[in-house]
Amino acid sequence: MRTIFTAEMSQLAEDLVDMAEHVKSAIHRATEALAKKDLDLAQKVIADDVKLDNMENRVDERCVLLIAQQQPVGLDLRTIVTSLRISAGLERMGDLAQHVAEAARRTYPDSPVPASHKDVIAKMGSAANHAADLVADLIRTRDLNVAAQIVDEDDTLDELHEKAYKLLLAKGYKGGTQQTLDVALLARFLERFGDHSVNVARRVIYLVTGDIDNERSTI
Amino acid sequence: MRTIFTAEMSQLAEDLVDMAEHVKSAIHRATEALAKKDLDLAQKVIADDVKLDNMENRVDERCVLLIAQQQPVGLDLRTIVTSLRISAGLERMGDLAQHVAEAARRTYPDSPVPASHKDVIAKMGSAANHAADLVADLIRTRDLNVAAQIVDEDDTLDELHEKAYKLLLAKGYKGGTQQTLDVALLARFLERFGDHSVNVARRVIYLVTGDIDNERSTI
Repeated sequence: MRTIFTAEMSQLAEDLVDMAEHVKSAIHRATEALAKKDLDLAQKVIADDVKLDNMENRVDERCVLLIAQQQPVGLDLRTIVTSLRISAGLERMGDLAQHVAEAARRTYPDSPVPASHKDVIAKMGSAANHAADLVADLIRTRDLNVAAQIVDEDDTLDELHEKAYKLLLAKGYKGGTQQTLDVALLARFLERFGDHSVNVARRVIYLVTGDIDNERSTI
Repeated sequence: MRTIFTAEMSQLAEDLVDMAEHVKSAIHRATEALAKKDLDLAQKVIADDVKLDNMENRVDERCVLLIAQQQPVGLDLRTIVTSLRISAGLERMGDLAQHVAEAARRTYPDSPVPASHKDVIAKMGSAANHAADLVADLIRTRDLNVAAQIVDEDDTLDELHEKAYKLLLAKGYKGGTQQTLDVALLARFLERFGDHSVNVARRVIYLVTGDIDNERSTI
């Protein structure tokens, strides 16, 4: 019985790794589709999101079954409950990558990003990609240094988000309303992507340390 | 032992009712602060959000303890796992009400809503308030008719959200960039508030019927 449980817990950990890898691929491709105005790539990201939803379903069902059949306690129970929260966070990160791809698709063959914002949005894309790389790494290794790095680096996305808004309000800004809306939402999607990566990091910190103060999302 | 468990499950149900009432009060006050440019009221909504976060913490801790100590199965287990998800949804609704209050506070003594959008944002506020009323009612009664009503009525918020964007892009629109951003974000907060009310409704449907297709959030 214990052997089956251990195997199931390993599978749960692997499922979360798969979800994190999916998210990493989705945001990398979405930001590339945005930068290169690549419609096919944007379409692929959008179409693939359902796979992540299915993965989340599977994780959730596995968690409920594990609790029901194995009646875990202590660290095992904490792992399962935290896994439910992490899967919800990863699914939301996938949604945000999808939103970025949708912005790229909607304005095709143009870019939704005006010249004034190319630089800041490109930097936000890089920061989001890096956050996703770290999250995938963290889910695999549960290395608290990686978790701390995710929390620290999110400041960059917050600052770039601020900067994107300031540029919209700067005197020389010439974009039309549609461009203003597009770039404001894009900046927000990428900033929220970072917020969710921080939430996942805090949950892993909680999982490893049992410290509830770090588990609670502050965002 | 069973008596304690029943009492704990009742307390869990009551905690969710309390959270839903808090959300209802928060969105009603936030939209009122917005409409009446009432700084004090906006401040109160913002300051009170920490109470909702604490309520969510308490619900989560209760759920984990209940699973650990009582090892529930079947409907009890489904109720506990779904309660975790509902509490997360309610907490997010509270955050969105807080964001509305923050928008009202940031532009005080002016309104963040330009004349062109007074009507549509007021309607969105009413629809969000009504969604919160229904959610509080639903959490208390678990009445599937109320759940269905929440899902149906969310179309109104989606349509008003579309309309708010169209008005921004209409020829006669004269707002500056800051107003464009303010109103776009406000509309989005209220629309997302509706999305989360639908997610809560779907979770209650799942809880009552066991039908997984209705549990999964589609948003």
